[in-house]
Amino acid sequence: MAHIPLDETLPGMRSLLAYRPAIAPAMTSLMEVLMRSDAGLSKGERELIGAMVSSLNDCFICHQIHGEIAQCFFDNNRQLIQQVKESYMDAPITARLKAILAIAASVQESGKAVSSAQVEAARNEGVSDMEIHDTVLIAAMFCMFNRYIDGLGVVSKDTPESFRERASMIAQMGYDHK
Amino acid sequence: MAHIPLDETLPGMRSLLAYRPAIAPAMTSLMEVLMRSDAGLSKGERELIGAMVSSLNDCFICHQIHGEIAQCFFDNNRQLIQQVKESYMDAPITARLKAILAIAASVQESGKAVSSAQVEAARNEGVSDMEIHDTVLIAAMFCMFNRYIDGLGVVSKDTPESFRERASMIAQMGYDHK
Repeated sequence: MAHIPLDETLPGMRSLLAYRPAIAPAMTSLMEVLMRSDAGLSKGERELIGAMVSSLNDCFICHQIHGEIAQCFFDNNRQLIQQVKESYMDAPITARLKAILAIAASVQESGKAVSSAQVEAARNEGVSDMEIHDTVLIAAMFCMFNRYIDGLGVVSKDTPESFRERASMIAQMGYDHK
Repeated sequence: MAHIPLDETLPGMRSLLAYRPAIAPAMTSLMEVLMRSDAGLSKGERELIGAMVSSLNDCFICHQIHGEIAQCFFDNNRQLIQQVKESYMDAPITARLKAILAIAASVQESGKAVSSAQVEAARNEGVSDMEIHDTVLIAAMFCMFNRYIDGLGVVSKDTPESFRERASMIAQMGYDHK
């Protein structure tokens, strides 16, 4: 049971947004503007960052749903997403994406863990300043979401099928239409 | 120097918001709605949570500015804020506030670190469900802000005086008027 009374018919973050309607629009706007853009980082890359950071934070609900959304953008390659969660450096992804995920993994640990060498390595792979910015903020935002979900003890009632169904909807329609 | 080119005439978070205007409104809304309310937690308690979590994350810019804002709401008692940052359990604050800060300190570590016993202890001090919710989300939000600021290597050009001046403005006017 969660630490506060939530509508248990609603999944994950939605139960929290419904609990605090005054805050929900700002949270949804932030997710929408950061996750639903292909300017610089693609939607799939943004979701992959979210899935990996959530996995590092051991937030089951977040790494499941965002992993499922990510695979919609990576040719439905669920195995690839799993490899990134387990060890992104060994996953069959581009050097560019590895450099991006390296920054995100440092952010998960601490803002101070991001090194100039990591940023330089990303630049050498063609990652732009705006992409570096978005990588840091997306990783930081998931450090918020993961703590929000687990800090309030939100319990998942999802099945693998319901995660997939919701992920497919979000991949198509975004977070405002959940 | 920051990892990306920022307007160095702007302080802290403002330089990041100016760099990414598409994202700034959502970030500002979130701060405003979570930090500028006296429904349940007071504005001062919200700022104190932010200052303490930022101190635990060793984010200089955030713990300075939010500590300065917090003291505006605690009778300009700068020493009290410092005591909370150093060891909230030993600070001369109410048992209620200690129970709130205990939850916030756990969130800083990990969402999973928040225990049912901590939530129960807070309830026994009269902390409401909504206050528990806001405590967790504010602490989580500062885990985002701290990583955003330090992950992009934002450098403070503030003096103790400029921190105080800006803090006083924010305490009076809020985050939309910075």
